Amino acid sequence: MTDEVNRLTAAELSGGLRSGQITVEEIARACLERIAARDAEVRAWSYVDPDAVIRQARELDKLPSRGPLHGIPFGIKDIYNTADMPTQHNSPIYTGHRPNVDAATVGTLRAAGALILGKTDTMEFASTGRLAATRNPHNLERTPGGSSSGSAASVADFHVPLALGTQTGGSLIRPASYCGVYAMKPTWNAVSAEGIKLISTTLDTAGWYGRSVADLALVADAFELEDAAPGGFTTLAGARILIDATPYQVEPASRDALAQATQRLEAAGAVAVRRDLAEIFTPMAGLWEVVSRSEGRTAFLDLARLYPHLLHEEFMRRANNIGGFSRAELLHAYDTAAQCRVRFDRIAGEVDAVLTLSAPGEAPPGRTQGDNALNRDLTLLHVPCINIPAGLGPNRLPVGLTLTGPRYSDRHLLTVAASVAPVLDLAVAQ
Amino acid sequence: MTDEVNRLTAAELSGGLRSGQITVEEIARACLERIAARDAEVRAWSYVDPDAVIRQARELDKLPSRGPLHGIPFGIKDIYNTADMPTQHNSPIYTGHRPNVDAATVGTLRAAGALILGKTDTMEFASTGRLAATRNPHNLERTPGGSSSGSAASVADFHVPLALGTQTGGSLIRPASYCGVYAMKPTWNAVSAEGIKLISTTLDTAGWYGRSVADLALVADAFELEDAAPGGFTTLAGARILIDATPYQVEPASRDALAQATQRLEAAGAVAVRRDLAEIFTPMAGLWEVVSRSEGRTAFLDLARLYPHLLHEEFMRRANNIGGFSRAELLHAYDTAAQCRVRFDRIAGEVDAVLTLSAPGEAPPGRTQGDNALNRDLTLLHVPCINIPAGLGPNRLPVGLTLTGPRYSDRHLLTVAASVAPVLDLAVAQ
Repeated sequence: MTDEVNRLTAAELSGGLRSGQITVEEIARACLERIAARDAEVRAWSYVDPDAVIRQARELDKLPSRGPLHGIPFGIKDIYNTADMPTQHNSPIYTGHRPNVDAATVGTLRAAGALILGKTDTMEFASTGRLAATRNPHNLERTPGGSSSGSAASVADFHVPLALGTQTGGSLIRPASYCGVYAMKPTWNAVSAEGIKLISTTLDTAGWYGRSVADLALVADAFELEDAAPGGFTTLAGARILIDATPYQVEPASRDALAQATQRLEAAGAVAVRRDLAEIFTPMAGLWEVVSRSEGRTAFLDLARLYPHLLHEEFMRRANNIGGFSRAELLHAYDTAAQCRVRFDRIAGEVDAVLTLSAPGEAPPGRTQGDNALNRDLTLLHVPCINIPAGLGPNRLPVGLTLTGPRYSDRHLLTVAASVAPVLDLAVAQ
Repeated sequence: MTDEVNRLTAAELSGGLRSGQITVEEIARACLERIAARDAEVRAWSYVDPDAVIRQARELDKLPSRGPLHGIPFGIKDIYNTADMPTQHNSPIYTGHRPNVDAATVGTLRAAGALILGKTDTMEFASTGRLAATRNPHNLERTPGGSSSGSAASVADFHVPLALGTQTGGSLIRPASYCGVYAMKPTWNAVSAEGIKLISTTLDTAGWYGRSVADLALVADAFELEDAAPGGFTTLAGARILIDATPYQVEPASRDALAQATQRLEAAGAVAVRRDLAEIFTPMAGLWEVVSRSEGRTAFLDLARLYPHLLHEEFMRRANNIGGFSRAELLHAYDTAAQCRVRFDRIAGEVDAVLTLSAPGEAPPGRTQGDNALNRDLTLLHVPCINIPAGLGPNRLPVGLTLTGPRYSDRHLLTVAASVAPVLDLAVAQ
């Protein structure tokens, strides 16, 4: 295989392992070398034990293959419990904490033979408070986006082909957009959230990063995703793509990316159906904040009462409901969101996919995680979202677009994404 | 204090501790003695370490009081993670497993000064498969009900004043009915489910057992429950209680208990509003099974793929979707349940409380957990439920009734229950 093993996709590595061209240990060493060369600058990782990685790789080399993910390295966002590594949530409460149990998703990946390479940096409890140390590999002065900062950057900078993240607001899709990688937020609860730090039961969604749609699909296979209905998509020619024409306040970089993507899709034979989705999003105004803050009150009560001096003030505010959200507002938010889900599924079900913005623009300077305004309603709608890199903005930084559809259309969406990606993704400059 | 310390309620113990009449260590010793005397027969506990309990009690005696639960012993259902005890889920996969982390609820109780006494037996993963060894303290040939078998029995048999359980179908309320104890299932997600084994995200609800409404309220205080609206209930005289007149197929024991309770409530001055709730429950037929089985597919995937020979066949069936539930059926169930929640809240909001059945009759013979037909729709509706013991059936075994109301009316419901309980609870014979 090439001497730049760490730049291969998971699908390519899987093929190389199957044909005996490469070993898991060689893959692991290539990843570790890249991390050693780059992570002092990128700071994607909160924990890697190279010796343990090599031991794990050698064991996997001895075993019969457990499937396409056998031997493929994964980064794991440090809010997932891992039995053999610390899980620290970027919180002083959990410094050196070893939970002695794997999150369900990590267990499923281990059963598929994945190589769990290490833990990636995150915003404190994937929410707010302490920032990740991670920098955007495309420009170290810029944020990789949050909260799955380390997972997105580690894939973008060729440390690992795949990584797990989570999304409660925009924590998977926004970093994918900023870092120029592929990401999948599956339908809510299609993948277990057990063993991931709870932030908001209604919103928390496990998801993953990869460098191609095919790689995202390999992980969807491991989690045995299944659609509510057969998709029926075959080719972009004649496919109907709803272009979200809601008049968002965003930077030209994002607006232009969507306009250009629309033109390219039409040039490829797709039918672009421009539609303002205000009928969905206007009734949802403010609901995400009510749900995330109110459920955060439940989620952070224990830490607020046990560790008031170690928990960041932002979480204390949440546990103590400083925002003053009433339980009546929460019920209103639940019930309105439930209605909006049905409406969105109906509209999105009339087309092959919906294309919308992933972020308000290129990655901003500094370490802040960025705005989740374009992601949070889709999170509350529980629908699958795939970020597809769609060229560069004026600062030569990546801009992504989101392909979405009805709940439990994940497989169909991956199929559409596989056709859409070559049209949109202009191979982001490194 | 009395020489039967273990028979006191949590509120009484709390008063005794505050006034210096008793120490935490004395309470702990009384509980441990009762367990030593009785648990060979009742088999409520999967783990108790008496030395560790005494050490914990002595530490609590040294500390300034953290509030009304300071020093009060709790049993913890063995699907809650506990940092200082095994957590075994009644599964051979988890034999001797020590997760090194507390469930959020256990952490919150520790912050309130509670004495975590030990782990109580459960159905395998609180669902199906392996039965709890626990017997009904009122008749050892009968079931205590499941899945929170040990928690209900430990409170009923005066081992501990309070215990945590969970409900996904009927696992809190049904054992409370069979064992003649009080139980509270709060509004869904009002209390964190983090660190409790995931069975079904939409259904899993942490709850607790006690021997009085006042004791249930102490735990509600620790979890900082808050209502969506002020309750306004003052006295039973003139209060409107909706009597669920849906024609269920149940044993005379339960039917009679509800009829007698209605008469007694009317005699106490309440207005009994008899109403058939078929308009709520008929559209919900089958939904609970779809949600619990479909979400179980997500929840048990990791164990099914990691431990196919150790996971009970019932969970393998769930992970492999042997029931053949489609994701379309799941979405239909989600959306219908969301509508039913709004309808139920509206109907229940027109009265002070709703009174319905807790179980189809007295505890049946054997160790099976019993039928959850009367509980599961209320679980899917996410509404608070309180079991109130309401006399004995023809076999001199307890029969309970459920007081329920709209989502996030937990505090109000406790206030109503405090007035209803003395009318219904004829002090179950021991």
